[in-house]
Amino acid sequence: MAKRVTGPEIEKLIQLLAKVPGLGPRSARRAALHLVKKKDQLLGPLADAMGEAHRKVRICSCCGNVDTIDPCTVCSDERRDHSVLIVVEDVSDLWALERAGAMNAAYHVLGGTLSPLDGVGPDDLNIKGLVQRVANGGVRELIIAVNATVEGQTTAHYITDQLEGMEVKITRLAHGVPVGGELDYLDEGTLAAALRARTSI
Amino acid sequence: MAKRVTGPEIEKLIQLLAKVPGLGPRSARRAALHLVKKKDQLLGPLADAMGEAHRKVRICSCCGNVDTIDPCTVCSDERRDHSVLIVVEDVSDLWALERAGAMNAAYHVLGGTLSPLDGVGPDDLNIKGLVQRVANGGVRELIIAVNATVEGQTTAHYITDQLEGMEVKITRLAHGVPVGGELDYLDEGTLAAALRARTSI
Repeated sequence: MAKRVTGPEIEKLIQLLAKVPGLGPRSARRAALHLVKKKDQLLGPLADAMGEAHRKVRICSCCGNVDTIDPCTVCSDERRDHSVLIVVEDVSDLWALERAGAMNAAYHVLGGTLSPLDGVGPDDLNIKGLVQRVANGGVRELIIAVNATVEGQTTAHYITDQLEGMEVKITRLAHGVPVGGELDYLDEGTLAAALRARTSI
Repeated sequence: MAKRVTGPEIEKLIQLLAKVPGLGPRSARRAALHLVKKKDQLLGPLADAMGEAHRKVRICSCCGNVDTIDPCTVCSDERRDHSVLIVVEDVSDLWALERAGAMNAAYHVLGGTLSPLDGVGPDDLNIKGLVQRVANGGVRELIIAVNATVEGQTTAHYITDQLEGMEVKITRLAHGVPVGGELDYLDEGTLAAALRARTSI
């Protein structure tokens, strides 16, 4: 803004809000105004929730999930089958798979994928922790649920190599047509994979 | 989520973030994860900024702008020409006009437009304050910069009526082709207005 039209505290709030993914400079301004208008219903509670999250949040030392307790809610849930580990790239993938609600397993968050071009090597990911968890025993199956990208597949191969000789079944997510997806819009690779993995009705 | 995968503090943060305009339930989750990952660079400062805004923010008793001081930064700016008042619906319009930087005037925020269907009458808007400001003298021109909607125009007419007999020039924003706009995409009303208000080159 050429001239100041509001206090520096509000300008600062707008600048910080603009760094939140999903908000840009323009929507940050809109968001800030909305928050200020709903001062007591939204701005205050949100400030408190952020402060509390900032004080309490930690990364689970076992699986890498984000939580306020360590071990996290998932790792300390005794109703889960901890002999099945779902290996994911990011915490958001863990949450997404949990929303699907298809498995009652435990997780392991890698924190990314191997990417030599970006300087991400095995030591930058939580792979040693995974090998350790499997070596400690009690893990029956490892479901490698990384993204179907080149980096994801490279990472999956690397993990498989690291676990060679250990008593664990390693699986990966099925490729195929997304539920509700239209064939016309799908790429050839997905269609070919779906045809190869066809099932009888 | 069917099963809890993270602490209640983080769930609460996600729920509150989802109420911020521009974020929905899905992007709130993404935003929360990003904030938590950038705990010290973003989450902490944002929590502080929100807390400070919550404590300090107030509505300017003179013009209705949002600020941390009262009278606000605009009203207390002595380099502005306070004999020209730009009347806007909302604080966001004030900020937008200031970004344009075309005028060095003062403002008056109505807080909405007359809308009998939504139960918004003259007493729900900051119209009395505007009449009072004009009656106090020193205001030479009133630029009514409300939205070009039916409600906006109704409000403009109402304000003009209220100020009848007072020594003040009342103007409104020009209608015309937006700068950078293509004629083909404009509605007939705008094109007709732009033709009627044509200027010589």
